[in-house]
Amino acid sequence: MRSTPRSIADEGAAVSALPVAPHIGTLVAGPRNAITDVPGVTVGHATLAQGPIQTGVTVVHPHQGDPYRDRVPAASAVLNGFGKSIGLVQVHELGVLETPIALTNTFSVATVTQAQIRQCVAANPQCGRRLPTVNPLVFECNDGYLNDIQAMAVMEQHYLDACASAGPAVAEGAVGAGRGMSSFGVKGGVGTASRRVTVASGAEFTVGALVVSNFGRPAQLMLAGRAIGQELAKTLAAASAGESEKGSIILLIATDAPLDARQLRRLALRAGAGLARTGSVFGHGSGDIALAFSTAYTLSQDPGRPMPDVAMLHDAWLDPLFQAVADSVEQAIIHSLLRAETVIGRNGHRRASLLELMPGLIPLFSEKSS
Amino acid sequence: MRSTPRSIADEGAAVSALPVAPHIGTLVAGPRNAITDVPGVTVGHATLAQGPIQTGVTVVHPHQGDPYRDRVPAASAVLNGFGKSIGLVQVHELGVLETPIALTNTFSVATVTQAQIRQCVAANPQCGRRLPTVNPLVFECNDGYLNDIQAMAVMEQHYLDACASAGPAVAEGAVGAGRGMSSFGVKGGVGTASRRVTVASGAEFTVGALVVSNFGRPAQLMLAGRAIGQELAKTLAAASAGESEKGSIILLIATDAPLDARQLRRLALRAGAGLARTGSVFGHGSGDIALAFSTAYTLSQDPGRPMPDVAMLHDAWLDPLFQAVADSVEQAIIHSLLRAETVIGRNGHRRASLLELMPGLIPLFSEKSS
Amino acid sequence: MRSTPRSIADEGAAVSALPVAPHIGTLVAGPRNAITDVPGVTVGHATLAQGPIQTGVTVVHPHQGDPYRDRVPAASAVLNGFGKSIGLVQVHELGVLETPIALTNTFSVATVTQAQIRQCVAANPQCGRRLPTVNPLVFECNDGYLNDIQAMAVMEQHYLDACASAGPAVAEGAVGAGRGMSSFGVKGGVGTASRRVTVASGAEFTVGALVVSNFGRPAQLMLAGRAIGQELAKTLAAASAGESEKGSIILLIATDAPLDARQLRRLALRAGAGLARTGSVFGHGSGDIALAFSTAYTLSQDPGRPMPDVAMLHDAWLDPLFQAVADSVEQAIIHSLLRAETVIGRNGHRRASLLELMPGLIPLFSEKSS
Amino acid sequence: MRSTPRSIADEGAAVSALPVAPHIGTLVAGPRNAITDVPGVTVGHATLAQGPIQTGVTVVHPHQGDPYRDRVPAASAVLNGFGKSIGLVQVHELGVLETPIALTNTFSVATVTQAQIRQCVAANPQCGRRLPTVNPLVFECNDGYLNDIQAMAVMEQHYLDACASAGPAVAEGAVGAGRGMSSFGVKGGVGTASRRVTVASGAEFTVGALVVSNFGRPAQLMLAGRAIGQELAKTLAAASAGESEKGSIILLIATDAPLDARQLRRLALRAGAGLARTGSVFGHGSGDIALAFSTAYTLSQDPGRPMPDVAMLHDAWLDPLFQAVADSVEQAIIHSLLRAETVIGRNGHRRASLLELMPGLIPLFSEKSS
Repeated sequence: MRSTPRSIADEGAAVSALPVAPHIGTLVAGPRNAITDVPGVTVGHATLAQGPIQTGVTVVHPHQGDPYRDRVPAASAVLNGFGKSIGLVQVHELGVLETPIALTNTFSVATVTQAQIRQCVAANPQCGRRLPTVNPLVFECNDGYLNDIQAMAVMEQHYLDACASAGPAVAEGAVGAGRGMSSFGVKGGVGTASRRVTVASGAEFTVGALVVSNFGRPAQLMLAGRAIGQELAKTLAAASAGESEKGSIILLIATDAPLDARQLRRLALRAGAGLARTGSVFGHGSGDIALAFSTAYTLSQDPGRPMPDVAMLHDAWLDPLFQAVADSVEQAIIHSLLRAETVIGRNGHRRASLLELMPGLIPLFSEKSS
Repeated sequence: MRSTPRSIADEGAAVSALPVAPHIGTLVAGPRNAITDVPGVTVGHATLAQGPIQTGVTVVHPHQGDPYRDRVPAASAVLNGFGKSIGLVQVHELGVLETPIALTNTFSVATVTQAQIRQCVAANPQCGRRLPTVNPLVFECNDGYLNDIQAMAVMEQHYLDACASAGPAVAEGAVGAGRGMSSFGVKGGVGTASRRVTVASGAEFTVGALVVSNFGRPAQLMLAGRAIGQELAKTLAAASAGESEKGSIILLIATDAPLDARQLRRLALRAGAGLARTGSVFGHGSGDIALAFSTAYTLSQDPGRPMPDVAMLHDAWLDPLFQAVADSVEQAIIHSLLRAETVIGRNGHRRASLLELMPGLIPLFSEKSS
Repeated sequence: MRSTPRSIADEGAAVSALPVAPHIGTLVAGPRNAITDVPGVTVGHATLAQGPIQTGVTVVHPHQGDPYRDRVPAASAVLNGFGKSIGLVQVHELGVLETPIALTNTFSVATVTQAQIRQCVAANPQCGRRLPTVNPLVFECNDGYLNDIQAMAVMEQHYLDACASAGPAVAEGAVGAGRGMSSFGVKGGVGTASRRVTVASGAEFTVGALVVSNFGRPAQLMLAGRAIGQELAKTLAAASAGESEKGSIILLIATDAPLDARQLRRLALRAGAGLARTGSVFGHGSGDIALAFSTAYTLSQDPGRPMPDVAMLHDAWLDPLFQAVADSVEQAIIHSLLRAETVIGRNGHRRASLLELMPGLIPLFSEKSS
Repeated sequence: MRSTPRSIADEGAAVSALPVAPHIGTLVAGPRNAITDVPGVTVGHATLAQGPIQTGVTVVHPHQGDPYRDRVPAASAVLNGFGKSIGLVQVHELGVLETPIALTNTFSVATVTQAQIRQCVAANPQCGRRLPTVNPLVFECNDGYLNDIQAMAVMEQHYLDACASAGPAVAEGAVGAGRGMSSFGVKGGVGTASRRVTVASGAEFTVGALVVSNFGRPAQLMLAGRAIGQELAKTLAAASAGESEKGSIILLIATDAPLDARQLRRLALRAGAGLARTGSVFGHGSGDIALAFSTAYTLSQDPGRPMPDVAMLHDAWLDPLFQAVADSVEQAIIHSLLRAETVIGRNGHRRASLLELMPGLIPLFSEKSS
């Protein structure tokens, strides 16, 4: 199964039909209120939406070159390690990305990993021979309620399709890796947001977040400070309220601030603050993993080429960036909920959108997001 | 300076004059809504309150025996390591406490450390000789705005006084280590809370939290879901709003659920979820450190004595405990704000209580806390 | 390409033709001097050895049941994270294995991951649906000098073949995942060893190690305390001596001592002590990763089933186990060098065995290994 | 008790009377074969040696300015966290040192901590008020066999004396914090060494190590590759051979290579490789903690001052530095053993020097160390 042009067209449509979402915090969003407000970052999706197959791949490119040759600094924070990602051990050791960041369903990590290796070898024929092997980086959530995860429908080509479709416009909701995901008992998926910050020197930076949300029990939901979980749980009836979390949320952070891997780990951890504001307690069965990267400079794979001489941001000036991480993550999660359409998948399982279930929320969200 | 009977009396008074606080979440609190609802846990304070000296020591006893000989399992989570605690390296390695948990101001860690060593040697004359040395465990926040921290007024006796005064009733607010602390530009200090949980087997457990709160910028404050920070910042005038955080929060978690150190680390991290709900983004200059311990069993210092054979709780049943940690931490922080009186200290610095600055909050908080 | 009965037969032959190796340390080895001396542990290989394809899969079963349903406690220590393993994030969080441990080449991690998922789903049809997804655990080294790694010749069936062939006899050297590996400029591969320990109570336990060795520059080699690296480097000529390490070593530790995940992490780290004695400094390009597990008890996947109530070993009694880990790891590395035959692979690349290059070593090693 | 000029004079004498030690590895040592070969680094001792008091303080200055204002990058690796150091939590978070590095006995950490705070406040009167508090950094080993550790004889002045006496000449053996330490059943203490490395670009750097050695059971000792532990154990008689380790080793690494905190953590971990070569398995009761720092640049405490724009060394060029760390650590441990005199302390306890017990070693060590 190939991802079809239809889904690309849909994605364009989705962008124009965004429901208005409440704006989180006092920082201003970037022009797209998306992770792609960080210059050079692009996002692509491949969406598989056919009967019991409701899944996909989402890709975030840190820059428009070859990430194996020109590596961006990065670090992760594992809030809850019930997750089957690949690549984090080496990110922790070396502090860099070597591939685009890929997201998919739990049982498709291997396929996307293989696709990343082949992609790197195609561009760098000495990879794994004269040059070091590449470190694939694939995150996952379990979309098994809507998607026939055991069918392992994602093919290597879908990853390449997602890469090829990447651009600055980011479709949200039930697209790409978010196609089959659920949060708080309603439809979740892809969400993104951004914030602009000014540090004490007057320098301005952008922080962007992209999430694939697949976490949370209905009763926990806090939406922009409103504890609507109890009402949501009643609407959904008691059935799922007692279920333990079997989801996950992947939280990606991009910034153009010059930071090293140690500082990026600090940023990544603050994604947990934004996540907690939505009601999450980082549930046992939820793989809650954050990764932050900076586009301010790259490190060449080739040690013979000059290393960048970059003045990093002083740690004492990180507070506005921490705030921006938490705010943009909370905003991105809200976007993932408000912009996901109802999806029917495997065995007729139906995950209603939040706004279908609680249409009374719509008039509450009249503020502009930027 | 000795801590005076006056402060003990005051503490009693404080307990009886608690303002009513909003109840966080849907779990029920224990009878005291305090960390001492976990059987065996006691809390004591020594408060120094005289002119420019506004500081103290707070002690949490995990049980009523000798913690060096009978050690409880424990683990910590460092949310932001801008902190000068002592003892965490060994807690991480061995997964146990060996002393009561002590809290004080940043420049008094050494004094309290010394007091803990002498206390252990007095009870165990072979400590450091035939028996291993003891691992002191002291946490700190910087109360330098109200307290003349450079005076290093805390003496070893104050630690012993705090130990001696320990009991199940927990004074909150501007007492003990919380005497000089500030949060969100208002008076902070000691707060405590508890929650009862039932796991799937029907077994019931208690989770208790105790915090010393000294973190947050006014504009960030979320109080029980209400974003009152902007209003508070206006009330306080612009002056402090731009200040970076130089505070800290120590978050202690106790439970009687049978958990090992790995599981307790998972609990400790969830303190961050409760903290984030109050508006914190784990600021750069804030030492945000959580520690969780279980009272369900002890491990003898003497390897010749039998090890406990305990059936731990299955990880898949931890979600209610995670919820209880987040809820009781948020509750404890609220208590620290609502129960702290206005304090005037060093150089006439004055930290008003939240309710003095925003008396309009009082009628909002009419719910009973348990 | 299927792994052929031929290789199985060869493996049997290899077992009987073991060169005598010097015995490391003063602890006694188990009857097989292999990781399978830990009761219940079995090891299997699938070896691909045909022209430019010189690679394979090795599998270690922690017990003879279904590891997804009955999970053994485990923990890892990353000595150098230049590695592309999958599964360690969840092992760290939950402290258990859910699959057999698989080892293969760097570009075949995805294939073996997929095979593990399908294997688990076949045995547990609700995996990823009503039951949680499974956490694959695959380690790797880069055998790209001898093996055409870009051919990705390992198929899912090879993993199943390795599982099926598993037993208590462990073939060593150029077999399974070790087929194409190199260490110190000579042929490396699979090595195993074990040690018996008695703790202060009189209780006896076994510690076993299995390594896939693919690390080290010739000049570094220390063999059983003999610094033969300079001589080896001269024999090999200057060419490779200046090369940076692009290898890896995976170090697996099994024990029947009752230990929890925190304690197993302590054991795993001691694999680094054994590794260092062979001359390694945990080179930049070497993925040096250790994992330790205990077979003393299992934790059911189903939280409704009783949890084991096990008296763990007191930490103060771990020293003999630490010694056994270091000694058995050093021994296993030596076995991997002494028992690997010369292999010719991709582009006619030839990796000579150590004993071919330095036949003078043979008479030195006259001691019996147990 | 003040440290006396006598000990300083002795130290001078000790330097000139160094026994010749075998040279570890193939890298060349710096002119002093000491950590002070890294430009700007100085070391000082205060030695207390009177009857039952056999202890002291050792200080390493990373540079000759104020380390609170101009901070060097640093990171630690905890090989075994049975240790009561203070300061590592913040070093991990912020990646810098703020004080000289101090070493002393286990029960004197608090006193030295207090001395560091007062020293910083004296130089920076706003410390803890307008400026952040300082992060003391004190390591310890337990010298309780020779020293009456419960007497807590170290005074704050001893720390200041050690600071004042600091210079490029480093006394080794039974001096400073090493005065009362024991290793492998013989006298241990302070040891230092250095190595020069050249990376692929042709740039040259120095790596220096300083240890306080207080670890190891007699039977474990490997001295420069010679397994002399069994013989040593026989010489010492069976008594102590079965004792578990209650020691520790602190391993400090300095370099002038431009590295960030993430890279320095990689260096710190390689201290474990050097330690393992001496026979250590990082025993349960031994606090084996390494810390590495770079003098290539400093980070101002004041965020308003320019941040350094430094081209770090490429990670792929770190192997020579890793080798230098392991070699200089092993060398420093050997120096600590060969240069420590016999000491008689508390209760007439006598710790013989290695060379007194095994004089036959002397002719073996005829090589020059640089």
